[in-house]
Amino acid sequence: MTRVYTPKQVDVVVSTIKTLSIDAVEKANSGHPGTPMGLANIAFELWTRTLRYDPTDPNWLGRDRFVLSAGHASMLLYSMLHLAGYNLPMSELRQFRQWGSKTPGHPEHGHTVGVEATTGPLGQGIGNAVGLALATKVKQGHFGEPFDAVRIFTICSDGDMMEGVSGEASSLAGHLGLSNLVAIYDDNKITIEGETSLAFSEDVGRRYEAYGWFVQRINGHDHEQIRVALDNAVAEKSRPSFIVARTHIANGAPHAHDTAEAHGAPLGHEEVSATKKNIGVDPGKTFFVPDEVYALFQDRAGDLAKDKQAWVAKYEAWRRANADLAGQLDRFESSHVPADLFAKLLAAVPAKDDATRSLSGVLEQVVADQVPSLMGGSADLAPSTKTLIKKGGSIDANAFSGRNLHFGIREHGMGAVCNGMALSGGVIPFGSTFLVFSDYMRASIRLSALSELPCLWIFTHDSVFLGEDGPTHQPIEHYWALRVIPNLALVRPADGIECAAAWVMALSRKKAPTAFALSRQKLPAIERDAGFDPNLVLRGAYVAQEATGASPDIVMVATGSEVHLAVGARVELEKAGKKVRVVSAPCLEIFSMQDASYREAVLPKGARIVSIEAGVTGPWRQWVRDGGLSIGIDHFGASAPDKVLAEKFGLTVDAVVQKIEAWL
Amino acid sequence: MTRVYTPKQVDVVVSTIKTLSIDAVEKANSGHPGTPMGLANIAFELWTRTLRYDPTDPNWLGRDRFVLSAGHASMLLYSMLHLAGYNLPMSELRQFRQWGSKTPGHPEHGHTVGVEATTGPLGQGIGNAVGLALATKVKQGHFGEPFDAVRIFTICSDGDMMEGVSGEASSLAGHLGLSNLVAIYDDNKITIEGETSLAFSEDVGRRYEAYGWFVQRINGHDHEQIRVALDNAVAEKSRPSFIVARTHIANGAPHAHDTAEAHGAPLGHEEVSATKKNIGVDPGKTFFVPDEVYALFQDRAGDLAKDKQAWVAKYEAWRRANADLAGQLDRFESSHVPADLFAKLLAAVPAKDDATRSLSGVLEQVVADQVPSLMGGSADLAPSTKTLIKKGGSIDANAFSGRNLHFGIREHGMGAVCNGMALSGGVIPFGSTFLVFSDYMRASIRLSALSELPCLWIFTHDSVFLGEDGPTHQPIEHYWALRVIPNLALVRPADGIECAAAWVMALSRKKAPTAFALSRQKLPAIERDAGFDPNLVLRGAYVAQEATGASPDIVMVATGSEVHLAVGARVELEKAGKKVRVVSAPCLEIFSMQDASYREAVLPKGARIVSIEAGVTGPWRQWVRDGGLSIGIDHFGASAPDKVLAEKFGLTVDAVVQKIEAWL
Repeated sequence: MTRVYTPKQVDVVVSTIKTLSIDAVEKANSGHPGTPMGLANIAFELWTRTLRYDPTDPNWLGRDRFVLSAGHASMLLYSMLHLAGYNLPMSELRQFRQWGSKTPGHPEHGHTVGVEATTGPLGQGIGNAVGLALATKVKQGHFGEPFDAVRIFTICSDGDMMEGVSGEASSLAGHLGLSNLVAIYDDNKITIEGETSLAFSEDVGRRYEAYGWFVQRINGHDHEQIRVALDNAVAEKSRPSFIVARTHIANGAPHAHDTAEAHGAPLGHEEVSATKKNIGVDPGKTFFVPDEVYALFQDRAGDLAKDKQAWVAKYEAWRRANADLAGQLDRFESSHVPADLFAKLLAAVPAKDDATRSLSGVLEQVVADQVPSLMGGSADLAPSTKTLIKKGGSIDANAFSGRNLHFGIREHGMGAVCNGMALSGGVIPFGSTFLVFSDYMRASIRLSALSELPCLWIFTHDSVFLGEDGPTHQPIEHYWALRVIPNLALVRPADGIECAAAWVMALSRKKAPTAFALSRQKLPAIERDAGFDPNLVLRGAYVAQEATGASPDIVMVATGSEVHLAVGARVELEKAGKKVRVVSAPCLEIFSMQDASYREAVLPKGARIVSIEAGVTGPWRQWVRDGGLSIGIDHFGASAPDKVLAEKFGLTVDAVVQKIEAWL
Repeated sequence: MTRVYTPKQVDVVVSTIKTLSIDAVEKANSGHPGTPMGLANIAFELWTRTLRYDPTDPNWLGRDRFVLSAGHASMLLYSMLHLAGYNLPMSELRQFRQWGSKTPGHPEHGHTVGVEATTGPLGQGIGNAVGLALATKVKQGHFGEPFDAVRIFTICSDGDMMEGVSGEASSLAGHLGLSNLVAIYDDNKITIEGETSLAFSEDVGRRYEAYGWFVQRINGHDHEQIRVALDNAVAEKSRPSFIVARTHIANGAPHAHDTAEAHGAPLGHEEVSATKKNIGVDPGKTFFVPDEVYALFQDRAGDLAKDKQAWVAKYEAWRRANADLAGQLDRFESSHVPADLFAKLLAAVPAKDDATRSLSGVLEQVVADQVPSLMGGSADLAPSTKTLIKKGGSIDANAFSGRNLHFGIREHGMGAVCNGMALSGGVIPFGSTFLVFSDYMRASIRLSALSELPCLWIFTHDSVFLGEDGPTHQPIEHYWALRVIPNLALVRPADGIECAAAWVMALSRKKAPTAFALSRQKLPAIERDAGFDPNLVLRGAYVAQEATGASPDIVMVATGSEVHLAVGARVELEKAGKKVRVVSAPCLEIFSMQDASYREAVLPKGARIVSIEAGVTGPWRQWVRDGGLSIGIDHFGASAPDKVLAEKFGLTVDAVVQKIEAWL
């Protein structure tokens, strides 16, 4: 049911949205007042007429999603969630930007009810929205009806439009024809440095037409135009929609209106008073919501509740008629991983020597069979990263029942889209490229860690041993650059068993992303000590080969392809009478979480420790300790065959043995 | 002089370019044969008719620049440089992708003569080309005539077009009206995963029209169309040019033609033979260049030499008529930094407490006066990063005599453009944003380090103490994520004197970039021991406050804002009878390069060491050693005022003292 509101009703709600936002910024003495004011008209129409939500059931499967890509306008979102009846009381709005409040400076998913994505870093939110729309299309492709009505809305700023990540994601959205996506571009022509004409004179609407979107241009303060545009966007059935809404920042503020100052600083007491007078609100009142405003949103919630009841009835009927599919949907939405997955993977480890990218690719097929939530793709490197789900089928425009995405050469867009897919619920997305190009998508990787999303970042060609492509393609600093990100784990397996463990470790991290580092080159299987328990691998680091006889003189700890150097060096050193233990450490972050006694047992106090990893060595000191030796590469790589590089960079068994002997 | 070549002449050169490329890939048994083949027609026209170069004087000030953004097609560039007469003999082509050769897998600037930019990571090269065009316009704006004829050409692949960084840089180029820039888009419709239609169906030409470029669409194998398009592009006087050249990958190869396989793998012996037969070359010959081909390029070199003579005569006349300006140009092109800069900066350090971003901003004005090569800007954060050169003037379309750029909210584009400006010669570019957003531009930062470019990356809001903007904006892992990049130094000054030193350290790194980490919040000046020599700061770390009396019980080493915590904690600990030294370490990378005796004097063997830095602690172990203590933050931040965060995260003087006492 769509209600018609009088101009006076519209006015009072719009004024309330504006004053809530500026009061909160004023009280916090920091924040962004101008954008919520400029967007208040659009927000009114979106929340009172278009968005389908249930404030009492914020995780309702059939809800629309709203992503505030312009995360700095957080008070707009908090105001709307409060008015719409979510559990975000006025006391929280009064605590905007304060410790422990539900109203942090930028919206944080999982922290505040109704916030569908953590936004603020520009361009990410629209990328997440593309991911949400894509995941919804895929769910529709797999399960059908329950997702037919779901749409994704996002509001983007000039900053979102300038960031390349939004271009990457939007180009993909156009390619895929994500008709369930509506992006509203807040074209206010103001950024921090001043007018956008300082740096930004392109025709954004035309660019989105080039991407294949349905583009409309409106006055973002004209309610009739907003309504028509939203209706047209929702009616569009083959393309994502882009609404260029010309707005004025700090709309309603007599002096701050259309100024850069209104972007990122409080208006100040005087201008707040003047604004309130100007828009017909009593300047003596703060955080004030007229009863009629609450009443209007209660009516809206009532209407939506009826719509939802109808959806639920249809959904229940669908479940009864499709019991199998309904069960699959439940497993999907709960990101179900069977308890015996590790056993199944160990049984499937290929018996032949191979690159860990290939071994992982074989095991991924088993994971895909067992974990229906797994889907993803590569930034145009699937034949190299070996990440294709062979029985999965490709996802393309009008073909959403597959599981393999083709992200194109768009690493950053891939990152933001995967995050959005994870935010959709259920989906365990993977995104894949060469390890060196993790740099391109680092901002999205960080957000996956901050937002506690179970994304899998599958990086291959994980060392200089990719060879001839040379230093631009050879990761050196990337192991540690990824390890230092809180809540991210880097898994670098050494052989098939460790690849199996890598998948299990990653899938056990329900609220954290995992990065894989996989070799391009072939590696032998590690010959582990007799009676070895593969469950030890899941502890992140373990004794792969114990020193002969008594306690070790030397403990070598290595990761990935360098474990094989350690194994080779051990043979030589033991021949020379040393007692040498080899520790394989596929995941230092998970090893760090083990109890102290286990860690101590693997790397005993007083042991002389050597690390071997084909990258920067400095941070290894925390593991090799004072007097330890770290063998690695502290400079950029070079273009040559991998065996030549191993010689030149001192990463052969002979060179390792020599270095260790010199150190002893 | 423009020569007209017969179709037969064109054919034999084009065939030679193709066979050189495929022979080299075949011999290396790795590389990308298809793209050089598809681009051979365009390369012919570019090198024999359009590009102005002097193979005997590759650094000629007045030369055109060519950037192969599609760096994987490196054999195309090497073939052209060889044929054009650069010092790249056939023996080097035969060593394609081998250790120590001048023909690495991807082109490396500074390694191979005539290579104007290190490319391979996609999207960067066109960004560099924008920077080269921009720097040329700025030089033209500052110095005039010597740069009037200089144009920048780049060839881009589908991958370049999909990457967001190219969109950011291209939008800026359109805004600035860089009419000296010509980008040729190799629209071959093939990527590694298959046809671009898998992931990429946008209208790229239309997108570039939206950016404000002059767009032409041609058949990239039709020489007449190529010539007309290049002539039109060069004639265009207000916009950058974009030529959509529809080509066929592996053009001329009977089976590999138009296939994804031809992108990244050798054609194989049979297909090479079949190709040679198909294009009229003797399959028995490899690395074969007919005499007439060399002769044709010698004629071209002769023509260009005459053109250059004319340029030189004009240039000399210009120098005579503009002696002052000529002197300025020489200082500019040599990136001149006066020897007494540090003294001048120390004299200019403001006497008041302030944020290091503000102190640095004041000192930057002095640097700008003394170092004409300094220019740059911010990704729409200049009022926050305080990086505006006050007397510099803004650079905008048709206004290139300024020194301040407005990069827009395009961090990655900023990175690639700054690298391009540095590649132009002379320019010392700076690019500025918040430290957390260094993630967005990390791929470009890495390339500045790999390419040995003297870029200054000025990052502010360098810790959780930026406060209310919350965890999306608060760097935690970024200090170490930057420190691990080879050839990059991170400087995090603690007060005005250290800011002065930061500028001097950065400007002394002629072949390396430097990242600044500057505080948002105010900091007091450090009270250093009497008789302190500021030159010690230039050593990266130094004793700021010595322990009272004898040798220290405790050495606290801290960076940036946390030095003040160390200073405060020292007072309390000394009251309690401890002897405490405070070491300030604005740059650990430069400190690492000091002789061992200095390092040992600052952090004596056997000392008990505590590090304090508001970020991840693990890698600090290399400095605090076994048994040392690292105080920091190993989780994401939160939205609250900075003083509250200091309390909650244990980064107050009291909390630091307590932690140290507990540790003792």
